[in-house]
Amino acid sequence: MYPKNTWYVACTPDEIAGKPLGRQICGEKIVFFRGPDQQVAAVEDFCPHRGAPLSLGRVEDGQLVCGYHGLAMGCDGKTAAMPGQRVRGFPCNKTYAAVERHGFIWVWPGDQALADATSIPHLHWAESDEWAYGGGLYHIACDYRLMIDNLMDLTHETYVHASSIGQKEIDEAAPTTAVEGDHVVTARHMENIMAPPFWRMALRGNGLADDVPVDRWQICRFSPPSHVLIEVGVAHAGKGGYHADARDKASSIVVDFITPESDTSIWYFWGMARNFNPGDTALTATIREGQGKIFSEDLEMLERQQQNLLAYPQRNLLKLNIDAGGVQSRRILERLVAAELGKEQQP
Amino acid sequence: MYPKNTWYVACTPDEIAGKPLGRQICGEKIVFFRGPDQQVAAVEDFCPHRGAPLSLGRVEDGQLVCGYHGLAMGCDGKTAAMPGQRVRGFPCNKTYAAVERHGFIWVWPGDQALADATSIPHLHWAESDEWAYGGGLYHIACDYRLMIDNLMDLTHETYVHASSIGQKEIDEAAPTTAVEGDHVVTARHMENIMAPPFWRMALRGNGLADDVPVDRWQICRFSPPSHVLIEVGVAHAGKGGYHADARDKASSIVVDFITPESDTSIWYFWGMARNFNPGDTALTATIREGQGKIFSEDLEMLERQQQNLLAYPQRNLLKLNIDAGGVQSRRILERLVAAELGKEQQP
Amino acid sequence: MYPKNTWYVACTPDEIAGKPLGRQICGEKIVFFRGPDQQVAAVEDFCPHRGAPLSLGRVEDGQLVCGYHGLAMGCDGKTAAMPGQRVRGFPCNKTYAAVERHGFIWVWPGDQALADATSIPHLHWAESDEWAYGGGLYHIACDYRLMIDNLMDLTHETYVHASSIGQKEIDEAAPTTAVEGDHVVTARHMENIMAPPFWRMALRGNGLADDVPVDRWQICRFSPPSHVLIEVGVAHAGKGGYHADARDKASSIVVDFITPESDTSIWYFWGMARNFNPGDTALTATIREGQGKIFSEDLEMLERQQQNLLAYPQRNLLKLNIDAGGVQSRRILERLVAAELGKEQQP
Repeated sequence: MYPKNTWYVACTPDEIAGKPLGRQICGEKIVFFRGPDQQVAAVEDFCPHRGAPLSLGRVEDGQLVCGYHGLAMGCDGKTAAMPGQRVRGFPCNKTYAAVERHGFIWVWPGDQALADATSIPHLHWAESDEWAYGGGLYHIACDYRLMIDNLMDLTHETYVHASSIGQKEIDEAAPTTAVEGDHVVTARHMENIMAPPFWRMALRGNGLADDVPVDRWQICRFSPPSHVLIEVGVAHAGKGGYHADARDKASSIVVDFITPESDTSIWYFWGMARNFNPGDTALTATIREGQGKIFSEDLEMLERQQQNLLAYPQRNLLKLNIDAGGVQSRRILERLVAAELGKEQQP
Repeated sequence: MYPKNTWYVACTPDEIAGKPLGRQICGEKIVFFRGPDQQVAAVEDFCPHRGAPLSLGRVEDGQLVCGYHGLAMGCDGKTAAMPGQRVRGFPCNKTYAAVERHGFIWVWPGDQALADATSIPHLHWAESDEWAYGGGLYHIACDYRLMIDNLMDLTHETYVHASSIGQKEIDEAAPTTAVEGDHVVTARHMENIMAPPFWRMALRGNGLADDVPVDRWQICRFSPPSHVLIEVGVAHAGKGGYHADARDKASSIVVDFITPESDTSIWYFWGMARNFNPGDTALTATIREGQGKIFSEDLEMLERQQQNLLAYPQRNLLKLNIDAGGVQSRRILERLVAAELGKEQQP
Repeated sequence: MYPKNTWYVACTPDEIAGKPLGRQICGEKIVFFRGPDQQVAAVEDFCPHRGAPLSLGRVEDGQLVCGYHGLAMGCDGKTAAMPGQRVRGFPCNKTYAAVERHGFIWVWPGDQALADATSIPHLHWAESDEWAYGGGLYHIACDYRLMIDNLMDLTHETYVHASSIGQKEIDEAAPTTAVEGDHVVTARHMENIMAPPFWRMALRGNGLADDVPVDRWQICRFSPPSHVLIEVGVAHAGKGGYHADARDKASSIVVDFITPESDTSIWYFWGMARNFNPGDTALTATIREGQGKIFSEDLEMLERQQQNLLAYPQRNLLKLNIDAGGVQSRRILERLVAAELGKEQQP
């Protein structure tokens, strides 16, 4: 249950540097590679000759060369050449719209004719020298909506991430959730509290005292199909909180792109964009390492939650105020999937 | 195929020391923990909030706190509290009767209204200073009845445990099997034989010569659902065998509690209770290590036997005299399961 | 989909030296062992007593003794003895025709009454002092026909084995395929080329210069059910190629016996027979190690190809000229399987 006529993050550029990458997305087995002009191409990961995965091959002059018997496929899914063969009649592979933008490779796993690159979300922090970005990728065996729930309800930080970003004050501050068209925003503000370890590190990274009270905020923004960008930060207390001057706060954007592999597994692209000390690559590495460790704490919980839900298919889950972000996001997804199905059923 | 309205061993106290334990028993996913008065509680391992396993959480003031968003559940399966929430209307979790007794936690996976703690078997050796006990737990991928068969027919010792407790004289001595109500007793006596290595060690542990002929006995007692207690021992030959004076023999009780996890997997609690030198903890450790090694020899055989039976569903097995203990035990189990089904079908 | 009334290689003699071997062949679970006169026996791997795999037991005086309770089975599938039991009425195990010949144990997994040892292929190189042989065994999760395809189309060497036996000239030289009854021969000849690394090693092993142009040949011979013997070699250019004098060439026979375990897994017996320096055991070891490494390169490709074919059941594969060897071999197999089914359906 996921929309297919939409853009998902497929991979990062380093994953297709000099070699093809095979990755299943929304049930489609796709191989990604760079074509003759270094543009990104995505075709079915199936050699029309004998069915070998093309991703086991190599890229040569912008063509994907099968590692079994040397069939060379172009970005258009057509066989361009094969030693000793006339290839004109070879069946054509399905292709997928793929675009490199903002430091990611995006793919449209559905009907390519509907793909519109202008609908790829604009990531201002990815295009500005005032921002730095670091991130990673996890494979998790859960429905992609469980990860959306996770990110739209940060009360879990108190329990899952108790030693880094969690603190009791989080689940004592009720969040507010607002729906704006296909977007959902869940916000929580905490005032005059002590920062937890991760944020103390960030305050120091921005040259600020870490032992004084702060105001803290979390503003989670869902947009379809499964992008969750979260503005997070702390400011020295009484300096205006979220609106405080840059020199009084440490803030950043938690970046989450969730790509379904199957109904019960995902590729989870996580990262953090910050606009303080963007040139400090050591700080970027430190934050990335810290975030990677924190986010890995969610894996077991999500996978075991998924197994439990499969074991208890008849159980209804609660929909509390803290769940509103996830609940509203799921409604939007249901509407989008229904619209796709409706379109397919029309003559 | 197992009775559910009966007591099984769920775990040992060390497994729930300071933390909850998730364990599937008879197909039921259960979390065990200690309540406010340190009494044992058992509830469904499913958080009513979002379905996370409660066993991934922690115990706080006798309540089970979900490790995802902090829902706190009481021993009664009711949500006691959740930060920022009114919990009165939350759905209640199924609970299971659980009792700590004789060094084990016992659970009744069926209808809790029928649970009767007085029917937990009395283990005299667990309550006496004259006895010492050591044991362990194995997870084995087989039907629990294959383990009952195994323990009610000790001729397998000659083949599976040839280097420790096996000896040719075992399968040369025909066993006798008697059924007494819901209990089955299979006994075998061997006279004037040399003791195998494990029993030589035990003789020495009791200060007895290990290089003289002995009389040896094995009295296997099955009681439902799947408890097999085996009186085993050797006495210097001609001293009365099983009835010999304590200073002429080394004897003990092999303890086997078999708890179905699913139709084809079990939690196997094994151990040995002895009434010689009960204060010698080093001896307890030596025996435990020896028994653990010996009993691990059954694992591959039982798991491969299970796979073979699944591959040949139409094959009938033989029921020889040596199999009588297992055959009779299975008949009792069939009767108990049929009785449970009959009760369920009544209005 | 494989013929069962035919001979497959089951194992090599070292695999049944002093102990039984359990191996599934064409869906049949079989245990192989040596009987009283060291002859090879093959019976169902299922103890009629309690269903344990007999292969977990041991061989004693030419009988297979079950490792669980000591039932002793003869080569005829009949229980010969069991401690304390009268065994005359015990059910008989299915037996399989098995023959040791040419350094292999051969088995006929179908109707034993039809088994005819004279139809085991004659392997002249296995019976001559002028030849040396070395080989090994791989378990691969693919349909046995994918391995036949692989071996009947050696253009894959250029891609899969680029660093050892592959070279561009292979897929530039079109093969010819001929069908002779139930046999298929695909041949390829390359003239005046430089030898790739493996063949340079072989030239040196035969005392020949490795830095001069050679003529190279590959003659793949399929015979049912799944034997592929490949004459391969290089001769100094202009000396007659395949027909060159022995002192001007290094040649050998690649030996491939492919035994289905299930519809999607095989036991792959690979090896190489050579008739130069047959007494040089160090050379045999070097060749064996080199071949083992090269042939292991096919594993991932074949297993991933199999997974892809299962994921795309509706896709048709191409049948190019280079595929003719595999295509023709599959036709013969289809005919043989249809003939077997026809026979079974007759009254």
